[in-house]
Formats: sequence, structure tokens, C-alpha cells
Amino acid sequence: MKHTRIKDLLNSTEYGQRITVKGWVRTFRNNQFIAINDGSTLGNIQAVVDFHHTDEALLKRITTGAAVAVTGPLVESLGKGQRVEIKVESLEILGDSDPEKFPLQPKKHSLEFLREIAHLRFRTNTFNAIFRVRTALSFAIHQFFYERGFVYLHTPIITGSDAEGAGEMFQVTTLDFDNTPRNPDGSVDYREDFFGKQTNLTVSGQLEGELAAMALGNIYTFGPTFRAENSNTTRHLAEFWMIEPEMAFYELDDNMDLAEELLKYVIRFALDHCPDEIEFLRTRLLEEEKNKPQKDRAEMDLVEKLNFCLDNSFERLTYTEAIAILQRSKPNQKKQFKYLIEGWGADLQSEHERYLVEKHFKKPVILTDYPAEIKAFYMRQNEPDAEGRRTVRAMDILFPGIGEMVGGSQREERLDKLTQRMEEMDIPAKEMDWFLDTRRFGTAPHSGFGVGFERLVLFVTGMPNIRDVIPFPRTPHNAEF
Amino acid sequence: MKHTRIKDLLNSTEYGQRITVKGWVRTFRNNQFIAINDGSTLGNIQAVVDFHHTDEALLKRITTGAAVAVTGPLVESLGKGQRVEIKVESLEILGDSDPEKFPLQPKKHSLEFLREIAHLRFRTNTFNAIFRVRTALSFAIHQFFYERGFVYLHTPIITGSDAEGAGEMFQVTTLDFDNTPRNPDGSVDYREDFFGKQTNLTVSGQLEGELAAMALGNIYTFGPTFRAENSNTTRHLAEFWMIEPEMAFYELDDNMDLAEELLKYVIRFALDHCPDEIEFLRTRLLEEEKNKPQKDRAEMDLVEKLNFCLDNSFERLTYTEAIAILQRSKPNQKKQFKYLIEGWGADLQSEHERYLVEKHFKKPVILTDYPAEIKAFYMRQNEPDAEGRRTVRAMDILFPGIGEMVGGSQREERLDKLTQRMEEMDIPAKEMDWFLDTRRFGTAPHSGFGVGFERLVLFVTGMPNIRDVIPFPRTPHNAEF
Repeated sequence: MKHTRIKDLLNSTEYGQRITVKGWVRTFRNNQFIAINDGSTLGNIQAVVDFHHTDEALLKRITTGAAVAVTGPLVESLGKGQRVEIKVESLEILGDSDPEKFPLQPKKHSLEFLREIAHLRFRTNTFNAIFRVRTALSFAIHQFFYERGFVYLHTPIITGSDAEGAGEMFQVTTLDFDNTPRNPDGSVDYREDFFGKQTNLTVSGQLEGELAAMALGNIYTFGPTFRAENSNTTRHLAEFWMIEPEMAFYELDDNMDLAEELLKYVIRFALDHCPDEIEFLRTRLLEEEKNKPQKDRAEMDLVEKLNFCLDNSFERLTYTEAIAILQRSKPNQKKQFKYLIEGWGADLQSEHERYLVEKHFKKPVILTDYPAEIKAFYMRQNEPDAEGRRTVRAMDILFPGIGEMVGGSQREERLDKLTQRMEEMDIPAKEMDWFLDTRRFGTAPHSGFGVGFERLVLFVTGMPNIRDVIPFPRTPHNAEF
Repeated sequence: MKHTRIKDLLNSTEYGQRITVKGWVRTFRNNQFIAINDGSTLGNIQAVVDFHHTDEALLKRITTGAAVAVTGPLVESLGKGQRVEIKVESLEILGDSDPEKFPLQPKKHSLEFLREIAHLRFRTNTFNAIFRVRTALSFAIHQFFYERGFVYLHTPIITGSDAEGAGEMFQVTTLDFDNTPRNPDGSVDYREDFFGKQTNLTVSGQLEGELAAMALGNIYTFGPTFRAENSNTTRHLAEFWMIEPEMAFYELDDNMDLAEELLKYVIRFALDHCPDEIEFLRTRLLEEEKNKPQKDRAEMDLVEKLNFCLDNSFERLTYTEAIAILQRSKPNQKKQFKYLIEGWGADLQSEHERYLVEKHFKKPVILTDYPAEIKAFYMRQNEPDAEGRRTVRAMDILFPGIGEMVGGSQREERLDKLTQRMEEMDIPAKEMDWFLDTRRFGTAPHSGFGVGFERLVLFVTGMPNIRDVIPFPRTPHNAEF
């Protein structure tokens, strides 16, 4: 008999219909009520066993985690908490789960413990909710760009270019540490490596994205990127997914408009398509917050925070304006910031970004025109201001709780300005010749930005640790599963 | 003035409306007619310059590849081949393109040459069409699964597990060849490596996918996978994208149904959403085929071939039945196969797969129940047949021209059978303990399959070489850009 998804059943009113459900036992109460989950939804269906007429040995095998198939009519439920249930006529144990050994019990487990058994944490409501929200956000991103005619570009993961300097890289190799081919001068002979040269894992698809945008107009990437940085924080992963759109003929304002539209679209999509999951996560977060001192609790709950981003136009101001605000701010005057803002040129810390968003403007903020010194070589250079300070057409979008959600810029499309900046920053122009070709042949203003996908999932799920929003996190000294 | 996408203009009938277009010059004829492309569509818009009243120096800068912005009214075109054109009132060169140096000229370039300048080949019609079809196929895949409630699972790219044995792997490391940490016995001390152990690039997300499916029900992956194999063919890449769905409670028939439905859905989607691109590629292929001897030409053109897959139910038969057909076949009898089929147990070659699809059944074919010896350890074992031959619940979908398009199986969900097979195949069970946990706790029948995305794009675009359907191909001794 074909089985029916629990998601479809929970909304069904076809009472009396005889159906089969397959799923895993979450709980079994009073030798009678089995809560079954099949992963299709957060909700369980209740299956009611007639224990008087069921073999004792079979009843004993209905344990948390066991896979079962139950068949019977769908009936209106008399119990609280569900509309329908199944009156069990036949029950089959597909796979047992020894309650002495199964690590997940029907109680609350810590996120740290669940991370140790990441291969089983999918079986909890929390991770069911997180990965459904993650799926909805992924799909929303693809739909947003597809509807707008963007080409989805799969930029290379293995790259022979290490020029961008966006971070420490992982080396990819087929050479043997024990029998390394050497040049006469003793250096490694990379001609013997798989690609005939030294290769690394990509830190960003942006440069390749620019090549395509300067032909196809609008493109985006959505793929994994890597940083071999030894940072053990709740915000960093060694392997994470990025979305990087790149648009020909876009100037900075167009870029900001698109980024704001994208963020609102995907947050709205998650609220619309995952109401149960978001509600579950909202409640989870509220309970989590109860354990914190009052002053550390968030002012908004999860749904309020998401709506906060939808209901407000993001405040746009320059870095220079932001520095002035921060310098005059109470936490700066009263020396409450850990890093005091002494003046123009300082790199902003999360505490400053959050002050601007949460206290000063009370809305998401887009900062533009950062000092050239603290930004990448490819950003478009502004004319120096009256005081001779050099800025670039960067934009960072700052979100409550999280700080930087998006980083982007208008790109430097002028060949002479770009090569001059590369020289200043010791970036070898020769290796980047292909990149410079876009400026040699039909260059044009263009812009782009990057969204760290896990940061977005973190924000929308309200989870505190980025390791809990990706199935199998990669961090220093951790590549399990 | 805000610019309008050429895609929107070509369908517009708002004659007289004053618009700005930004794009790249494809051709400039008679000092008068500029064909401009902005990447939003295959089509160009014609912009007509009044050369009598245009500065001679400016006209000289309208060269192939230059980026321009033109403004003027949209008017009905008198020329052949287009419905609308722009009467140029103002023209600005955004970026010059020196015709002496720009490698792309308005003529046909070989695919081999274009591969050398992969950063510029996006500017050709062929690659514009390919990457739009690729985008449509990607989106169709996500939409297919999202509509059916599948969770999109980002399985890890860097993996500490090398047990599957699906192929040669790339090592990922932060260790230094010149200063490698060593254990007392002289072996590499991987505790000093970034992840504290030896890590590689993934060859498949299937095993991790199974973990999630045994909780979330239905999941799919769509991500990059890697093979460090030294095969320089038109069908292999060292880095390619795979789609790997995995479904709890699916048996082999359900698995075949889903795979057939998926392939038909995405091919239909491409035909519906990329009619111009497919028509362009169809014509391109016909012209390409003219250079081949008659006997090597395809029997069907591109659109016929795509419809061939949509219009037929895929023929399903066992490996054993297929072997019997092949043994009796004319090319086997007449020794025309390069590899003659001597009997049961032989691995099928592309020539055999294509014979079944193109000559014998004249429809796509799904072969099932392959000999256990030639398939992976995780496939569900059938009972030995009357002659004691061991087969597994594998299924391969064979397509015209391309051979294997999908490979999948029902998975071995029985712990004892699985561990026994792993032992036979020397796969260390200890390292795979997390995988075996799915069989220990609530195991259940489940199935899945893998689609090589570039093979699919190859099939739908009719391109002859897989290096031409991914932006920057990675192959032995090639990791440019």
C-alpha cells in the first residue's frame, strides 16, 4: 500500500479513509499513543494502538527512534493538540531502535551535544525546522534571481588564482608529502600536481562573476567558499555558502536597491512559506532567552526582528557620517564601547554596527564609501575629499543582532585606476591578466555584493551558533561525517 | 536616465518611447547600424546612427566589443530581421575595445580557441545560450524538488571520510610541503593539519544525504563534487556539479519513477523557457554535423532528441535481460562492438548502452539489478538467483548519445547485510560508524540516485564537449581563471 506524507494528512479531512503512514516514533505514551514523524513537516501524527489486541512483544518494539509503518483509517481526534489521528489496524516495525543505545530521547538535548551527533540531530524538531527554513531561503534566492533574468553562474571551486587576498586558503593537491617532486632549486615542482600548478579552494566567486557579468549582464553565484582561518567563533565556518550577484551597468545605488530587495524578498518568503517552523524557532529562542540576564535578552522576538527588516527602508549613510554619529554617541562618550571611536579611518566593530542599527536608527543600515585603506583593491575609487581622504564605493548592510549581512561595492572599471591600486597593494597584475581584460575590452560601470548564506540562515532562524545552521560544519579541528 | 534591458525592448511595441540601452557592440555596419547585446537575451537590438551628424572620432570608437550607452526613441524597424530599433540621439562610449587587440571578431571561432579565452567566451551567442539553458535547468531542478517538499541539503565539500571509494580524491591541506610535521615513525602528523586529520574533496554527498533522509524523509543535494582522475575525455571533469536526491521509504520502483519524472520535468522546462536558445543550439548542431561523414551524423536533431525523451516511457528491464538482448544483437554477432558481450557479468560500455537506447528500444532505458560485483557496497542486495548469481537493486538511466545519465539504487538498509558487504569490499566499518547508525536506529527501506549536472546540460544543449557547458572547466593540467 502506498504511504501518505504526514504533512498531507494533518491537513486532510477525509475521515474514514484508510491510509498507511511510514515514519519514526517520537514518543509512545500509555502503551497506546504513538507520535510519528516522517520529516515532511514539524508536526507528528498520532496513531492509536488497541493494546488489548496487540502482541506484547510488538508493543515493546515501539520505541523512540524506531521506524514504523502503520495502516488504518484516518479519524477525528478526541485528544488535545491534533485534529486527526490514525486508528491502527496493522503496525509493522521497519527498523528497531534500542532505547538503551539510541542517543536521542524525548527530552531537550543541548545544541553542543547534538553537534556531536550531527548525523542524528536531523531527527529533532529544532533541526527539522532549521533545515526547512534553510531550504526555503535557498529556493527564494534562486527564484528571486531567476524571475529577474539573472544567469546562475557556477564559478570554480578549485582555483589557480590566489590573488584576491580575501583570506587564508586551503591547498588542493594530489602530490604526496612523502615523495614530493622537486625542482633543481629544491622548491616543490607543481608541474607534477594534478593541475600542473599550485591550486587552492576558492574564497570568492566574484572575480569570475565579473567576467560573466561583463557579457551576460546580470549573474549570480550560489556556491561554497572557504577560509583556512583559525577562528573558533559562533560566526565563522571554514566552509560556507555565498551568494554573489554581479551586475553590469549597475552603480552603487542600483546595487543597494537590489540587495535590499533581495533580503526583504527572502525574509518575506520564509515567513510566508515556513510559518510553523518560524513559530517553533521563535518559541525556542524565547525559552533560551529566559536563561539569560534581563540586560542580555533581545528586545524583539524572532518574528518582530524579521518584520523589523521588512517594514523599514534601510537607512543609507556614508561611513564618514556614521563615524561622526558614533563619536558623539553616548557609549563612546561614556567609554562603554570596547573599541572607542577615535576618528575617521577606524574599522567598525560589531558593537558599533549594532549601535547604529539597534539604538540610533532602529532599522537596518547601509554604510557606504568606506576608507580605501580598509577595503579590497577592486572597489571603485572616489575622488579624494576636501581633506584628501580616499574612499571607495563600498557598501555594507548591517542587521540587528548580526552586524554585517551583506558586503559589496561598485567595482573599479577604469583600467589605470585599478592597476595603480593593485600595484599599491602588491597584487600581481600579471597573474590577473584575464581579470584586467574586462577593463581592456568594453569596460563599463558594474557592481556586486556578497551574502554569507549561513549568516542569513542564522538571522532568520534566530539560532545563536553558525554551526547549527549547516548540516555538517567545518571548523578548525573538525571535519566529522 | 535608467536603462532598459534589451530583452524587454525586443518585445515592446511602445514606439516613440525614449529609452536608453547599455550593452556591447556586436557589429557596426555601414557606419550606421550598431547591433548591441546586453546579455539579457540572445537577441541584439539595432541602433541606427545618423553618421552625417555624428563626430567622426566617435564613430571610429564604435568597434566590436566596445561598451556603449545609446539613447533615443524606439521605432519600428524597416530592416529585415528585427521588429524594433533605436534611433540614436545620443551615444556614449563607456569602454573602448581596440579592434587590433580584442580576440573576438564577428566571425565563427572554434570551441577550442574559445576555451583558451573562457573569460571572454561569455560574449558569444553560443555561450550566452548555453549558460541560459544551464540556468534554466538549475532552476527547474530546485523548483521540482521544492514543489515536492524535499529539503535541499548542503552536504560538506571537505570531507574527513574517504571510505566510499567512488574515485580518486584531491587532498585538502594547510600543511607545508617544505616543513611537514612528522610523527616519530616518519609519517605525516595530520594532527597539525587544519582539521586535525587528513581531509579530501568530496566525491559524492550521498552518504551524508542518507543521514538526513532517514529523518527529514526526502532530501536532495546540488553541489560540486570532485574526481582526481587523469581522464582527458569529452565527458569528464575533475570538478562537476551533482544532484543527489535521497528518499526514505522509497523502493526501487519509486526511485525510477522519481528520476524519470525529474528528467522529463527539467527537459520540458528548458524547452518551454529557453525556446530561442534551444533553437539557436539546434541550428548550431546541424551546421556542426554537416562537417561529419553521413554515418556519424545524429539521426535526430536537438529538439527531436529532447522530445524523444519526453514522449516515451523509459523502458525498464534488468541487466540480465539486457545482456541477453546484447548477446543476440547484430553488432555482437557480427563482432562490430569494440567490446563483445561474452556473457553475464560484463560491465556495459557506452556502445552497448547506446545500442539498447538508440537501436533496440528506441527510447530511454532504465537497467536494474546489476551484478553486485560491479556496483557499490551500499546497494541493496537481491537474493541470489537460481544460478547463484548475486545482483543489487541498482538502476542506471541510459540516454541517446550520452549513455548513462542517472545512476542510483535502493540502499541496503539491513545492518548485517551491509556490514558483511563492507567487509567483503575492505571498507573500514569503524570509520563509517556514523553511517551505520542509520541502520542501527530506525532503519527503513530508502533509495536515491545521482545526476551529473554537466551531463544533463550537455544533453540539453547538444554540445559535444563537457568543457563547454561549465564556465571554467577543471581538467588535468588545467585550472585557469
